[in-house]
Amino acid sequence: MKRISLNVILTGIIVILVAALVVVLVYLKNQPPQKRGVAPIVQIVSMEPDSAIWGENFPNEYSTLLLTRTNNARTQYGGSEPYSKLIEDPRLITLFKGYTFEKDYNEDRGHLNSLIDVRATKRVNDKTPGTCYSCKSTDNPRLWAELGMATFDHAPFSELGTRINNPIGCANCHEAGTMRLIVTNPALEEALTAQGKDWRTFTRQQMRTIVCANCHVEYYFAGDGKYLTFPWKNGTKIENIAQYYVEIAFKDWDHQISGAPMIKMQHPDFELYTADSTHYRAGVSCADCHMPYTRDGAAKFSSHDVKSPLSEVDKACGACHTDVEYVKSRVETIQEQVYETLIATEDALVAAITSIQAAGASPNVDPALLNEARSLHREAQLRWDFIAAENSMGFHNPEEALRILAIATNLARQAQLKAVQAAGTPAVLPASP
Amino acid sequence: MKRISLNVILTGIIVILVAALVVVLVYLKNQPPQKRGVAPIVQIVSMEPDSAIWGENFPNEYSTLLLTRTNNARTQYGGSEPYSKLIEDPRLITLFKGYTFEKDYNEDRGHLNSLIDVRATKRVNDKTPGTCYSCKSTDNPRLWAELGMATFDHAPFSELGTRINNPIGCANCHEAGTMRLIVTNPALEEALTAQGKDWRTFTRQQMRTIVCANCHVEYYFAGDGKYLTFPWKNGTKIENIAQYYVEIAFKDWDHQISGAPMIKMQHPDFELYTADSTHYRAGVSCADCHMPYTRDGAAKFSSHDVKSPLSEVDKACGACHTDVEYVKSRVETIQEQVYETLIATEDALVAAITSIQAAGASPNVDPALLNEARSLHREAQLRWDFIAAENSMGFHNPEEALRILAIATNLARQAQLKAVQAAGTPAVLPASP
Repeated sequence: MKRISLNVILTGIIVILVAALVVVLVYLKNQPPQKRGVAPIVQIVSMEPDSAIWGENFPNEYSTLLLTRTNNARTQYGGSEPYSKLIEDPRLITLFKGYTFEKDYNEDRGHLNSLIDVRATKRVNDKTPGTCYSCKSTDNPRLWAELGMATFDHAPFSELGTRINNPIGCANCHEAGTMRLIVTNPALEEALTAQGKDWRTFTRQQMRTIVCANCHVEYYFAGDGKYLTFPWKNGTKIENIAQYYVEIAFKDWDHQISGAPMIKMQHPDFELYTADSTHYRAGVSCADCHMPYTRDGAAKFSSHDVKSPLSEVDKACGACHTDVEYVKSRVETIQEQVYETLIATEDALVAAITSIQAAGASPNVDPALLNEARSLHREAQLRWDFIAAENSMGFHNPEEALRILAIATNLARQAQLKAVQAAGTPAVLPASP
Repeated sequence: MKRISLNVILTGIIVILVAALVVVLVYLKNQPPQKRGVAPIVQIVSMEPDSAIWGENFPNEYSTLLLTRTNNARTQYGGSEPYSKLIEDPRLITLFKGYTFEKDYNEDRGHLNSLIDVRATKRVNDKTPGTCYSCKSTDNPRLWAELGMATFDHAPFSELGTRINNPIGCANCHEAGTMRLIVTNPALEEALTAQGKDWRTFTRQQMRTIVCANCHVEYYFAGDGKYLTFPWKNGTKIENIAQYYVEIAFKDWDHQISGAPMIKMQHPDFELYTADSTHYRAGVSCADCHMPYTRDGAAKFSSHDVKSPLSEVDKACGACHTDVEYVKSRVETIQEQVYETLIATEDALVAAITSIQAAGASPNVDPALLNEARSLHREAQLRWDFIAAENSMGFHNPEEALRILAIATNLARQAQLKAVQAAGTPAVLPASP
């Protein structure tokens, strides 16, 4: 009796346990699959232009992006204060004579000011194409997808502007949902494809540089459609770009004093940085210095207050360099050296322009030689502008910047010499060379 | 009875112990003071010129010094192979026209070849002063002490040579006995004193740079006595040195083609390196890269096979840099950039020389303007030579080297323009500018 009842009890327990196990396993099987990370607060639609919506899910990134509107600190040679470059350095008025940049050329401000500033600049007029909105708005990815880039670029600036409401933000670099970094500018996609490169195969660290090339590059407007194009067919070094512009016989404007067919460089930060700079070769990305990792309590994130590393050397340089004061003084020394060399190039360019003008007015000027002088002026100035329009006063690649400026000065002086030959008299030289 | 005898025994033990302690203390007091390190095998007399004797005590240092005689590897832009710079780059023959360097200008070899090479060079002739032995021998410190530097320098080269038998070696940098690093060249002592500096207060790491300045500097021979002098009164940057030479109205020779009063720069490795180079500012000494720490079994010593770090990047760069291949490729890139810029400067200088020559032969030349052109030639070439004569193809200080070359090219082109103005006609320009 006793033995039987014990067996019954034990069997009952086993049955109950098996039943419980089955219930639990069935329950678990019917649960939704576990996800990593935090559940999103809002669903972000593809190419959502309103960064505030993305900000619901990413408050740290968004709150730092907001700082780019007002956090306009000036550094020794740049920063984000919108001072007039023309007032700072009146040589520029001569160098850009006959082009819109002689009217208005301010230091650029942070990302959230992009729309305000592009609409305020006196460089915009009735003939400005839609292309000029290419790097100004999170509305771009959606409009490029809807219209295609050709239609986007061909539209008048003022007309396109009615459909553009948001400054630079999340959708310019991120894919909604996955948040991965993506190339959004079709011109960059086309330039990379032409070089046989597919950014979809890039590492995340490579993407932390390439997304900046959505905008921080030299570009031009091709054809009557003003189609946004990067001049990278031959490569991205200055010699490759200069050669490309010769091959397609392109010019941005005719210089009003020298008559040379000129190229205005935009902001080739990416090209200068990736031309074998020491930081690039060491594997450092744009974001490492301009969007340094930041902590807020337990959260670690990339600051989206994109700006000069000089305004936060501890975070920006200190992640790799232990002696930040040493590093800061190195930057200062190098930028002084580049600035001094840059100004010498400008003086040589102004002298060349003056000499070519005087030669053009000479009675017996040799037109072939005068055109050679103009070509030299063009080649000198586009090299100078590659460094001048770039945003680091050479620090993105110090040796390359100084190499290029040495060539530019040499070419500017050769333009002067050619002007003398064209005129047949040294009377065309300015009083001080 | 029992109690008394125990007390006696204990007292006896105490007495014995105190006596033993006294004996031991007296013995220790009479021992000679302990010395660190290994007892020297030979006593080295002050300013001993024979490095082989020092080598008895320091076999590792000496055996590596011996390598400088035969270990003449060539690097991309230098090294220790005695190739002819004039054959490599015939522009130099034009640049040094009228000076001994147009006859003979070879890449320098390792320290132990110093005497052979200074006696073999065609730059030495009947008028060569004793000063030219200043950096060639371990006999120098003794002779400077015996004769004084003025008498040493004033003696004819051939006469002084009979008293000089040993190449560069231990006594040029070390004090016998203590082996500490010392300034042995009176010209360096005087130059430092004039700047208010006392090398006796320097740290050992500072001495590991300053002893190289015993020789690896720009210098000139002052007055009829050919007194060895460093042109450092205004400072050691190129602008300071150029200004100094203007102030004392010094010239090494008159250029045979342009007629300009020229300065030949020697080997300003120290001046370029210490002009705020990144390595110098980071506290790196000359010896850290050129005499890297080496191990032989348990012994660790500075290699005295002083040579290009490029011939042993693992040791030379690897002590600080983990990725030596990356570092080597950086050096290559920078040296290519400097070399390209240097050659452009030479082309500009040759063009300036040709134009000044032609202007000088013009019937109505303006002599004042022609002299201005010559001054520009001088100023351009001494800046170029500051980088060309220096032994690192710019790597000792890349940004400074490129900054200086950009200025040199600018000045050379301005010399050309001034020549045109002096002649009143562009006919003085060479066919290709």
